[in-house]
Amino acid sequence: MVRSIADPALEARITLRLASLTKPPGSLGRLEELALQVGLIQATDMPSVGRKAMLLFCADHGVTDEGVSPFPQEVTRQMVANFQAGGAAITVLCRQYRIEPVIVDMGVGRPTRNFAREPAMSRVEAQRAVEMGIAHAGDGDLLGAGEMGIGNSTAAAALLCAFTGANPRDAAGRGTGLDDAGVARKADVIARALALHRPDPTEALGTLAALGGFEIAAIAGLILGAAERRRVVILDGFISCSAALVARAIEPAALDYVVYSHCSAERGHRRMLEALGALGTRRPLLDLDMRLGEGTGAAIGISLVESAVRLYREMATFASAGVSTTY
Amino acid sequence: MVRSIADPALEARITLRLASLTKPPGSLGRLEELALQVGLIQATDMPSVGRKAMLLFCADHGVTDEGVSPFPQEVTRQMVANFQAGGAAITVLCRQYRIEPVIVDMGVGRPTRNFAREPAMSRVEAQRAVEMGIAHAGDGDLLGAGEMGIGNSTAAAALLCAFTGANPRDAAGRGTGLDDAGVARKADVIARALALHRPDPTEALGTLAALGGFEIAAIAGLILGAAERRRVVILDGFISCSAALVARAIEPAALDYVVYSHCSAERGHRRMLEALGALGTRRPLLDLDMRLGEGTGAAIGISLVESAVRLYREMATFASAGVSTTY
Repeated sequence: MVRSIADPALEARITLRLASLTKPPGSLGRLEELALQVGLIQATDMPSVGRKAMLLFCADHGVTDEGVSPFPQEVTRQMVANFQAGGAAITVLCRQYRIEPVIVDMGVGRPTRNFAREPAMSRVEAQRAVEMGIAHAGDGDLLGAGEMGIGNSTAAAALLCAFTGANPRDAAGRGTGLDDAGVARKADVIARALALHRPDPTEALGTLAALGGFEIAAIAGLILGAAERRRVVILDGFISCSAALVARAIEPAALDYVVYSHCSAERGHRRMLEALGALGTRRPLLDLDMRLGEGTGAAIGISLVESAVRLYREMATFASAGVSTTY
Repeated sequence: MVRSIADPALEARITLRLASLTKPPGSLGRLEELALQVGLIQATDMPSVGRKAMLLFCADHGVTDEGVSPFPQEVTRQMVANFQAGGAAITVLCRQYRIEPVIVDMGVGRPTRNFAREPAMSRVEAQRAVEMGIAHAGDGDLLGAGEMGIGNSTAAAALLCAFTGANPRDAAGRGTGLDDAGVARKADVIARALALHRPDPTEALGTLAALGGFEIAAIAGLILGAAERRRVVILDGFISCSAALVARAIEPAALDYVVYSHCSAERGHRRMLEALGALGTRRPLLDLDMRLGEGTGAAIGISLVESAVRLYREMATFASAGVSTTY
C-alpha cells in the first residue's frame, strides 16, 4: 500500500527550518524543494542521506531482431563485464559520488521475446521481474535507477505510446545512435506492435508484459518498493521514466517518491516527463544533453539530493551562528 | 600574457579519445564538451582534476549606506565567522565535494567608499585587489570563485551597466531579498553613480575602481591568474560573472578558461551571461533557481567538471573492454 507523502504539519516544520538557515530565504532554490521532498518521503523533519545505491538492472530484448539498435545484442553482456570491471561511465560516477553500484542480471543472454511478433513476456514473468525490483528497494536509502539493455529504448518508446497515446514517430528516438532510416524503422516496429497487442493502459501488467523489458519491469518494481519503504528513488532518463509510467498505472502515489534527475536528449523524453507531471518544482534537476542511460544522470542527481539533505542538516541557523536577520 | 586555448591538433586528439570510450558517441553531452575544454585549458590530452579549491573573497561595501541591502553590513563579518565554523552553505558543499575552502579577507570591516558619492576605491587599491586574486590562482588546479559581501549585488549590477550599457532597472535585482521599493532604490543608486562617474568600459581598471568591490576585483584577478597558469576557473552567479566582465575588458582571451556553473535567479544574471557569450556549448551547467552566492553554484559546478575529467580518464575504451562497436 503506497500513500501520498503529503503531510501539511511536517511540511510546515521543514519549511520553518529552511527559513532559519543562514541564507536569504529561498535562495537555495530547487535544493530547498528537494530537502522538503526528501523529508516528506522519509516522514521526518531531519532527513538523512544514508546508503546511496545505484541499481543496474541488465537484460536483453528480443526486439533487437528487428534491427532497432546499431549495437548487437551481445553488447549488453559486454557492458555488464565493463560494469564489473569499473570501466563504464556509471561506475566512474559511482566511484566519484561514493554510490554503491548493484548489478542485477534480469535476463542477460536470455532475452524477452520479440514484441513485434508476440508478447515480450508472460504476465507471470512480468510480475516476477517487478517483484525483483521491489526487493532491491532494500539495497539503499537513496536509490538510483540504472539499466543496460540493447534494444530497451524501443521498449520504452512503445510503453510511452501505450500509456500516453503518443505517436510512435514522436516516441522513437535515436537510442544509441540510429540514423534517420533506423529511427523510421523503429517507429514502424512500435506501430506494428501496438496494432498487434492493442495494449490497455489501465492494465499495467498486461501492457508491461506485451512491450516491456525485464529491466524496465524491475525499475517499475524499484519505484513501487521505494514508495512502500518510504525511500527516495532517483530516476535517470528515457528508460527509467518509462518504468515510472508502469509504476504509476499500478500505484499513482508512487510517483511522490521519485526525483527526476535529468532531461535526456533522447527524443520522447520531454514528452514522457510531461506525461509524468515532472514540471514546476518536480521538473528534472539537470539538462546536460546526456543520453547515455546506465543511470549516469541519476548518479549526478543523487549527488544533488545529497547536497540538499546535507545543506538542510548541516547549515547553521541565524540564531546558532549569531548572524543578524532582516526579520 | 593570456593566450586563447584553441589548439586544433590537441582538440582532434581529445575528440578521438572521447569517441573511443565505451558509450554511444556524444552521449555524455555537455560532460564531453567540458572534458574537451579542460584538456585545452591544461594543454594536454590527459587532463586531471588535481586540487579543488574554493576561493572565498570577502569584503564590505560603502554603498550599503544607501539602503541597498536588507541585511546590515556587519553580516559580512558574521558570515565569515560562519565560513570558518563550517556552518555556511558553501562550507557544507565544500565538505561534500571535497573542495578546499580558502577564505580571503579583502576588506571585511574596511569597506570600499560609497560609490553613489565617490569612487569606491582608488586605481591603486583596485590594482592591488586584482593582484591578490591573481596570486590566489595558485591555490588549486580547479578554482571556484566564491564571495561574501553585503551590498555586492549593487556593485555587480553597476558593473553590468557600465560594461554592457544595460539599464539599471534591468540590472538591479532583489539580491538577498529586497522588496520592489528596495529594488527601485537600488536601480536609482546605480543610475546616479553612472551619471557621477561616467565609467568608460574600455578603461577596465578605472571602471572597477569607480564601482568596485574588493572581492569583485579579486575574482577578476583570479580569472586572469587562472588564465596565465592555464587553470580552470569555475564561476558562480551574478557577482563572479560581473568580475568576468572586468577580466574580459583587461584580457579578452581570459574567458576561455572560465566555466559558468549556473544561471542564477538574480535578475540581470541571464543578461550578463549573454554579454559574456555564455551560450551554446559554453552555457551554464545548472539552472536550479539558486541565488545564494558564496560560490554555492560553483561548488556543484566543480563536481561536474570533476565528473567530466574522471569519465574522460577512467572510462574503458571499446578496444580495452572488448565491447563491440557499430563502426
